[in-house]
Amino acid sequence: MPTRQLSLNLFIYPDGHHEAAWRYPSAEIARLTDVSWFQRLAQQAEQVAFDAVFFADGPVLAENIEYAPRFRLEPITLLAGIAAATSRIGLIATASTTYHQPYNLARLFASVDHQSRGRVGWNIVTTTNDAAAFNFGLDAHPSHAERYARAQEFLEVVTGLWDSWEDDAVLADPVGGRYADPAKIHRLDHEGRYFTVRGPLNVPRVPQGRPVYVQAGSSEDGRGFAARWAEAIFTAHQTLPSAQEFYCDIKSRALGLGRRPEHIRVLPGLSPFIGGTEAEAKRLQAEFNDLIQPGYSLQQLRQMLGVDFTGHDLDAPFPRHLIAPDNSRAVASRFQVVLDIVDREKPTLRGLLHRLAGARGHFVLAGTPEQVADHIETWFTQAAADGFNIMPPWLPGGFEAFADQVVPLLRRRGLFREEYARSTLRDHYGLPRPESRFAALPQRRAS
Amino acid sequence: MPTRQLSLNLFIYPDGHHEAAWRYPSAEIARLTDVSWFQRLAQQAEQVAFDAVFFADGPVLAENIEYAPRFRLEPITLLAGIAAATSRIGLIATASTTYHQPYNLARLFASVDHQSRGRVGWNIVTTTNDAAAFNFGLDAHPSHAERYARAQEFLEVVTGLWDSWEDDAVLADPVGGRYADPAKIHRLDHEGRYFTVRGPLNVPRVPQGRPVYVQAGSSEDGRGFAARWAEAIFTAHQTLPSAQEFYCDIKSRALGLGRRPEHIRVLPGLSPFIGGTEAEAKRLQAEFNDLIQPGYSLQQLRQMLGVDFTGHDLDAPFPRHLIAPDNSRAVASRFQVVLDIVDREKPTLRGLLHRLAGARGHFVLAGTPEQVADHIETWFTQAAADGFNIMPPWLPGGFEAFADQVVPLLRRRGLFREEYARSTLRDHYGLPRPESRFAALPQRRAS
Ligand SMILES: Cc1cc2nc3c(=O)[nH]c(=O)nc-3n(C[C@H](O)[C@H](O)[C@H](O)COP(=O)(O)O)c2cc1C
Ligand SMILES: Cc1cc2nc3c(=O)[nH]c(=O)nc-3n(C[C@H](O)[C@H](O)[C@H](O)COP(=O)(O)O)c2cc1C
Repeated sequence: MPTRQLSLNLFIYPDGHHEAAWRYPSAEIARLTDVSWFQRLAQQAEQVAFDAVFFADGPVLAENIEYAPRFRLEPITLLAGIAAATSRIGLIATASTTYHQPYNLARLFASVDHQSRGRVGWNIVTTTNDAAAFNFGLDAHPSHAERYARAQEFLEVVTGLWDSWEDDAVLADPVGGRYADPAKIHRLDHEGRYFTVRGPLNVPRVPQGRPVYVQAGSSEDGRGFAARWAEAIFTAHQTLPSAQEFYCDIKSRALGLGRRPEHIRVLPGLSPFIGGTEAEAKRLQAEFNDLIQPGYSLQQLRQMLGVDFTGHDLDAPFPRHLIAPDNSRAVASRFQVVLDIVDREKPTLRGLLHRLAGARGHFVLAGTPEQVADHIETWFTQAAADGFNIMPPWLPGGFEAFADQVVPLLRRRGLFREEYARSTLRDHYGLPRPESRFAALPQRRAS
Repeated sequence: MPTRQLSLNLFIYPDGHHEAAWRYPSAEIARLTDVSWFQRLAQQAEQVAFDAVFFADGPVLAENIEYAPRFRLEPITLLAGIAAATSRIGLIATASTTYHQPYNLARLFASVDHQSRGRVGWNIVTTTNDAAAFNFGLDAHPSHAERYARAQEFLEVVTGLWDSWEDDAVLADPVGGRYADPAKIHRLDHEGRYFTVRGPLNVPRVPQGRPVYVQAGSSEDGRGFAARWAEAIFTAHQTLPSAQEFYCDIKSRALGLGRRPEHIRVLPGLSPFIGGTEAEAKRLQAEFNDLIQPGYSLQQLRQMLGVDFTGHDLDAPFPRHLIAPDNSRAVASRFQVVLDIVDREKPTLRGLLHRLAGARGHFVLAGTPEQVADHIETWFTQAAADGFNIMPPWLPGGFEAFADQVVPLLRRRGLFREEYARSTLRDHYGLPRPESRFAALPQRRAS
């Protein structure tokens, strides 16, 4: 494909991205533990040739379960269930480097990459919710720096495991009686600060070589990690300049490490309310905002800013002075986004809650299909994005509006594919299939 | 159902249970990483109303990969892929208590029980292959006693996690704005020797309450563990008296712990070679045995007995004196089985390799459909088995012969169901759905 391709993922927050989606009259909340719900959403996204569906994750129950369905089906097994009901769309699940063992996680993703014939991506996170620690025998969530140091070593290990079988290790010669060539199946003998792992993995190399490495952290450590490892990056921006700064920074960091910038897809979030007119779209958004519950929203805000505003006057100006300039209890990728909104828009506390209810800091756009397409085109052509994580406010309706009304416009403008050209997630994203690190060893060439 | 029910599982060793299955001319060895291979086998088993399919597992690559396809797709994700292509058959995967974290494992099985609407079983093992240790940062595989002590605590934790949401915790009241009742979602606050886990799990209670607990160890510790936790037991026996001894011992241990004996299904392995005449069946078996490779078989034997017989005369009597009476490097559940064969049958070394090639110590029967049905009926009616793990020597042919020729006989004799009565694995096995341990708390009744 000579022209630059727009990538579109469907981010499946089970009931939709708006925090009150589950209260919207059409919500099918009884189906959120039902795999057919997720299969249908993925099939709908596959019908319009989306690159992938994407699932967030964290190994702990959200605090605000009382006010919204904030539980999670474990997403890697969910991908396997969706893989069986689809054939082309990519499948991305989040998993934590802080709370997994590399050998186990490498097996889970390898199995799903085999099952899906090469459609799997791993969203690599270090876990934001610090209460996860208590489910894994720790007294406290490791520090941000510690988490990224472990993530770094984790990636070295799993990459080695996914490389441990060379592509031609399987001989499958029943007559000669040799199934595999042990000279092409390699131990790692990794001994590091966090992990000691011998390998090899116990499954042949996966269709994509390795799952696609996705990343979603924007701190200084997060950016360095992304520049080194990420092949796609999910990110949250409220303005074009902020997205451009991030885009340019990531691409030049990657260049500095000898990587090709087009091999990192930068994909900001976008949560669209779509209406026949802008006023209609804004009415729809207001309908959702009327359903939010301050008890829930204040908890969300506390997680993003590290400060609890319960008891403050919802209709007074937001008490900006209560926020320390650098708050280590906050989520780095959201902290600055929220502060920027406050400084730019000077909302009341309630106004801020409404502003964040749509997508927890991601860009929310209430407008016509043309306005949504314009936004996408602008960011795509002005070096702010290689594509988007589409985060429909509610499901499936919010996605159907995008698929039916915005996708055709993007196609007419030559921005988005009419159909899949090939079938792996690497293909969709235009990423190369990595060679096994062992395939280049001199002793191999000699033999 | 008033009459006692026979249970039948299909044990899916990817290419079949005989160690040379992959060399048999009809073998489809290119499909062993292909989920549709496993989906088809499960569908075939579902067509004849088998209780479940079953997958072994270990988190390490088998040593003898050179001589046979001894790799593994991670089985829990595989169950999710099979669940999507079936609707009634039970789905059992093996997972190790030694090499998992309870919170992660509890999530994986919970997700697949939801996805399959209540068809999941967990074969609980402590892992036999001691090389697994090196993939998880350990210097050595923990001792047998240590592994069972950890397994015991592991079960306490995951049982608590699966119980942590009461059945009626989800309110799903969009109008009132309450999704769940936090008073019915419980922390464990478990602090033990091996694990500290706060909980609760981050997903609503699964359809079966908990996955069906399956177990497969026959040592003294293994039996104690099974009597306490198991709802189905996989076991290997070569003679009716040995199976009867095990059956009776397990049931009386369970009784001693206040459990009902029919709530533990005892399921020995059975690997059938089926022919129109006994001679034909034996010729078929000989065809497979002719394909074995001593290099492979000797490695298998070393794992079972802890002694390496490489270099010994294959056609001399088996050197029985080289085996110490209690060998801690051996697999306890197989050690005695193999010694009994040696003492009873006095084979040559090659004869022993042939004897074990079929099913690594499980019962191999080469005979007519009537003879296979007779064996099943005898063991079932004479207190040796509640059913069987059917381990076809090769797939799918070896299973198709059983389904087409033996299942109808079992039905004619009133031993096996014509069709599924209900849809969960607990239903098929006749097991009760456990109540959450928290549902019985006094404060709950009062509230
Ligand atoms: C679109 C997006 C999705 C994310 N999804 C998750 C998630 O599912 N689980 C999680 O623990 N963190 C998630 N994060 C947070 C980060 O990945 C990261 O773990 C955390 O913010 C720390 O990184 P940072 O400090 O570098 O931003 C997400 C972030 C973004 C932008
Ligand atoms: C039918 C059957 C299947 C088994 N499957 C496994 C398996 O998949 N993985 C494993 O590590 N051990 C497996 N085992 C072995 C035991 O579960 C157990 O971990 C080991 O033998 C130690 O237990 P024991 O000493 O009490 O027999 C199996 C045993 C039997 C009888």
